[in-house]
Amino acid sequence: MGIETKQLHPIRIVVDAMGGDYAPQEVVKGAVEAAQEFKNIEVVLVGPRQSVQKELSQYNTSGLKISLVPAEETIGMDEDPVRAIRRKQDSSIVVGIKLVKSGQAAAFVSGGSTGAIAAAALLMLGRKKRISRPALGATFESLKGPSMLLDVGANADCKPENLLQFAQMGSVYMQRIHGLAQPRVGLLSSGEESIKGNKVTRSAHELLAKSKLNFVGNVEGRDIPKGSVDVIVTDGFTGNVAIKLAEGLGEMMGELFKKMNGGASLFKDKRVLNHTAGAMLLGVDGNVIITHGKSDSSMIKQSIQLAGRMVEQGVTEAIDAIV
Amino acid sequence: MGIETKQLHPIRIVVDAMGGDYAPQEVVKGAVEAAQEFKNIEVVLVGPRQSVQKELSQYNTSGLKISLVPAEETIGMDEDPVRAIRRKQDSSIVVGIKLVKSGQAAAFVSGGSTGAIAAAALLMLGRKKRISRPALGATFESLKGPSMLLDVGANADCKPENLLQFAQMGSVYMQRIHGLAQPRVGLLSSGEESIKGNKVTRSAHELLAKSKLNFVGNVEGRDIPKGSVDVIVTDGFTGNVAIKLAEGLGEMMGELFKKMNGGASLFKDKRVLNHTAGAMLLGVDGNVIITHGKSDSSMIKQSIQLAGRMVEQGVTEAIDAIV
Repeated sequence: MGIETKQLHPIRIVVDAMGGDYAPQEVVKGAVEAAQEFKNIEVVLVGPRQSVQKELSQYNTSGLKISLVPAEETIGMDEDPVRAIRRKQDSSIVVGIKLVKSGQAAAFVSGGSTGAIAAAALLMLGRKKRISRPALGATFESLKGPSMLLDVGANADCKPENLLQFAQMGSVYMQRIHGLAQPRVGLLSSGEESIKGNKVTRSAHELLAKSKLNFVGNVEGRDIPKGSVDVIVTDGFTGNVAIKLAEGLGEMMGELFKKMNGGASLFKDKRVLNHTAGAMLLGVDGNVIITHGKSDSSMIKQSIQLAGRMVEQGVTEAIDAIV
Repeated sequence: MGIETKQLHPIRIVVDAMGGDYAPQEVVKGAVEAAQEFKNIEVVLVGPRQSVQKELSQYNTSGLKISLVPAEETIGMDEDPVRAIRRKQDSSIVVGIKLVKSGQAAAFVSGGSTGAIAAAALLMLGRKKRISRPALGATFESLKGPSMLLDVGANADCKPENLLQFAQMGSVYMQRIHGLAQPRVGLLSSGEESIKGNKVTRSAHELLAKSKLNFVGNVEGRDIPKGSVDVIVTDGFTGNVAIKLAEGLGEMMGELFKKMNGGASLFKDKRVLNHTAGAMLLGVDGNVIITHGKSDSSMIKQSIQLAGRMVEQGVTEAIDAIV
């Protein structure tokens, strides 16, 4: 790779105080915990001054690197993304992304509307030169360790070239964040043979086979939890269905298990197919993490930590080096 | 509806003795068990005379309605479907489908190559007039009862009209087999709102909304196990990924559970997202059930029973009445 990343400390991470179903309570709590735990990180909360301060006042923040940038508007989950970010210039998403754009902060973390965050990032930060379409990458614990599935929802319709770029970005991510020298890349399809799949995947298979990536071929739905590969590429429609199905099944089986075992949890130690943290918006010119809408303080804290690691490891810069 | 189905008893079901990973042993065992249990069914095994007879000789079949039609060739899982069925005229799949085509039998059950069975059915039985593309429908137990997901693999690339027809066929199936007066139909997409999804689903949404079906709108991956709807329609690529992911996750969690509970099974009573039987090839002019490649005798027996019910309930004839 040969890219050196020098980062001034502390790393400043902007956190959308209004993002997610349990905002601002859980977000502020997670932000405080992150500031307590990660000494190399400074947390900048964006959100309505009064409600964020009210939450913050519940914690002893003296000596912590945590601050507030006011943004009085909030973008709802059901608003049209592009219209919302154009109209609500004082929303936590727009103000937060602006702080990254201007270089005042290194990353943005939000559990708000995926569409609005992606649109704001694309319009305000721009995309990487070599990347036609940014993708949303979700990491999870497979049976063999961390894996990344992408795209999980940024692009419902994809071209073969998009899938190749997703594979390149996913590989960079797994190299930088999980230290894999040559991440194994699989193309999600409806059969293992290269001729299986729809038109887009059959063409993408050819592009991937010709690429310099460690492409191992097609993988099937059952390979996702198995961890047969480190990076699984697919279009944002199929990826979205897959990640939500896995989540739904995981919750359901977890509940079933609890009932049968007097409240004990199935996934105490091993969080199979649970997101380890948020989903990364890869391919935009900045570090953007979209955390789960149902994030609690612990997931917010994890996403802040991950944002810090993405900055330290130069993931976004390394995507610039994709040829 | 209004279609009367008169069926002469016993209902003759052709079973591919060479279909699946545990053929012919488990297939013959399941066929014998079906003949023992279902007095209205006659089982016709197709396969190599010697090996099928050897398996049959292990059971007391006197008085049972079970017979053998020899077919000495076998189509492998990795053979090109269309070439294989053209070349191997004495294969169990070709001979079996021919028995249905000629009206000598009412249904064909096989755990063999999905591609080869679908190709043979399409070429030899033909498709229903109103159905441009037959679909593979898989039923499973959701939290709220039986649901059908289709297409799970017959058509990787679909047009909006195909998805409408899948919904119509799935509705007919759930009416006839599960007695639902107005099956709720959901369109699998990447968001609940009608504008969410890829181009094909957005157009399909409009067609479904205008149809006479009980269309409730888009559903997401997490709705599949929940049983929010009775029929979930999607293209054969996404459906295939989804069904295999669910299967893989189910197996994995089942194993995890066993380890933690000294061998007890998670799904003893409730087979959540397990296939209840095979997948039905809907839209061809005949009853064709493709059982799981890993079917044991009990799954073969179930598929034979289901084939009998499809004949009795006139599913295929009812698909003719779709307008």
